[in-house]
Amino acid sequence: MTYCVAVKLKQGLVMASDSRTNAGIDHLATFRKMSVFQAEDRILVLLSAGNLATTQSVVSLLQQQIGSQDDHLENVHSLYDAASLVGSTLRTYLSRHAERNELDSGVDYSCTFILGGSIKGHEHRLFTIYPQGNFIEASEDTPYFQIGESKYGKPILDRVIRYDTNMMQAVKCVLVSFDSTIRSNLSVGLPLDILLIHEQEIKPSLQHRFLDGDPYLVSLRESWSQGLKTLFQSIPEPPWTI
Amino acid sequence: MTYCVAVKLKQGLVMASDSRTNAGIDHLATFRKMSVFQAEDRILVLLSAGNLATTQSVVSLLQQQIGSQDDHLENVHSLYDAASLVGSTLRTYLSRHAERNELDSGVDYSCTFILGGSIKGHEHRLFTIYPQGNFIEASEDTPYFQIGESKYGKPILDRVIRYDTNMMQAVKCVLVSFDSTIRSNLSVGLPLDILLIHEQEIKPSLQHRFLDGDPYLVSLRESWSQGLKTLFQSIPEPPWTI
Repeated sequence: MTYCVAVKLKQGLVMASDSRTNAGIDHLATFRKMSVFQAEDRILVLLSAGNLATTQSVVSLLQQQIGSQDDHLENVHSLYDAASLVGSTLRTYLSRHAERNELDSGVDYSCTFILGGSIKGHEHRLFTIYPQGNFIEASEDTPYFQIGESKYGKPILDRVIRYDTNMMQAVKCVLVSFDSTIRSNLSVGLPLDILLIHEQEIKPSLQHRFLDGDPYLVSLRESWSQGLKTLFQSIPEPPWTI
Repeated sequence: MTYCVAVKLKQGLVMASDSRTNAGIDHLATFRKMSVFQAEDRILVLLSAGNLATTQSVVSLLQQQIGSQDDHLENVHSLYDAASLVGSTLRTYLSRHAERNELDSGVDYSCTFILGGSIKGHEHRLFTIYPQGNFIEASEDTPYFQIGESKYGKPILDRVIRYDTNMMQAVKCVLVSFDSTIRSNLSVGLPLDILLIHEQEIKPSLQHRFLDGDPYLVSLRESWSQGLKTLFQSIPEPPWTI
């Protein structure tokens, strides 16, 4: 499995992904789930969850398209068109496999993407692209998307993330969300890739890979864990005498 | 969906269940997911998640068996035999439906149970019973079981619950786990049933239904929410200058 989170804030975008993949419990491996498409007038960041063969193929196909006469991620006019292109590339790939009857083998070939970025002169935007190729866009009301093992880390996002949350607060919240997920689910693991894009920017404001032992991440995990225990102890017990 | 948690502590058992059921998003209703079998020499508590028609039928069948010449929950010799009886009753029910081809309709008829309790002269025990009728038992290493919408509320259980955790601490932790689940998932909701059995006891030490507005639950939810926000604010931001 995998866990990716992306947040669309007033201040810009926070994109984060883990890097563990597994096929069963034997085949654990590390693969980056974040692909960056950087051109002069734009930055697009793609996060992926699901079948690794599918996600890698779709990313490779999207990269191969660049420079061709057709639409590709570095020449489409809008983020909407970019999401549409990712969706159609995914659909084309999956239908090719369906024709070969490979989809009947019981293997789940599907995957889900999050696409975030900005194109010069346009607002930053964020989309979730479904296995069917259709997609939804983040809004002020629903400013974050998760894909993969999303449930363990959802409660803290629900409590903290708003459209006007400060970017560094959002980064902290995303890291806490990953911490809860990593503790409760073996299929999500470090390293953790994070990329920030400030509004109006078309380059990453920051790109960081948290490795095991990263001092800030270690301190955050310890403070959070210790703080939770202290908070938990501070809450009164039920007023029952039994 | 549903959410149930049960904990086997050195001090005894904590059994908890929500009461929301839904078929799609239109058919929301309230049903107790906790069934108590109380006899002179024993108490058995059954929590259920999954298809409501199946769980209700299995509970009715288990109740109908009582008083017959055959094995039933009030005469079997051990908790192990009780878990086995729940499993076989479930399997019989499901296979009867399979014969009528009703299982081919695309509806998921399966369900999962947690069975906890104690029989006079024996230690208290806790089991999860799978849709296939087989089951696993809680141990000192793995003292809690969840069924239904388990992921949102798992991180806090992982952080707090140990075999030697104090019973009231465990109750608090279970309530926090429910709070996280209820906030993030519409298919889990109040009222919340909780039942405690102290070790060596064959009666409930306490049985309580938390309704919406329960003063202790409201105060726990507010303290936890406020405490989390304060804790979150207290954690330093990433040491990045961007």
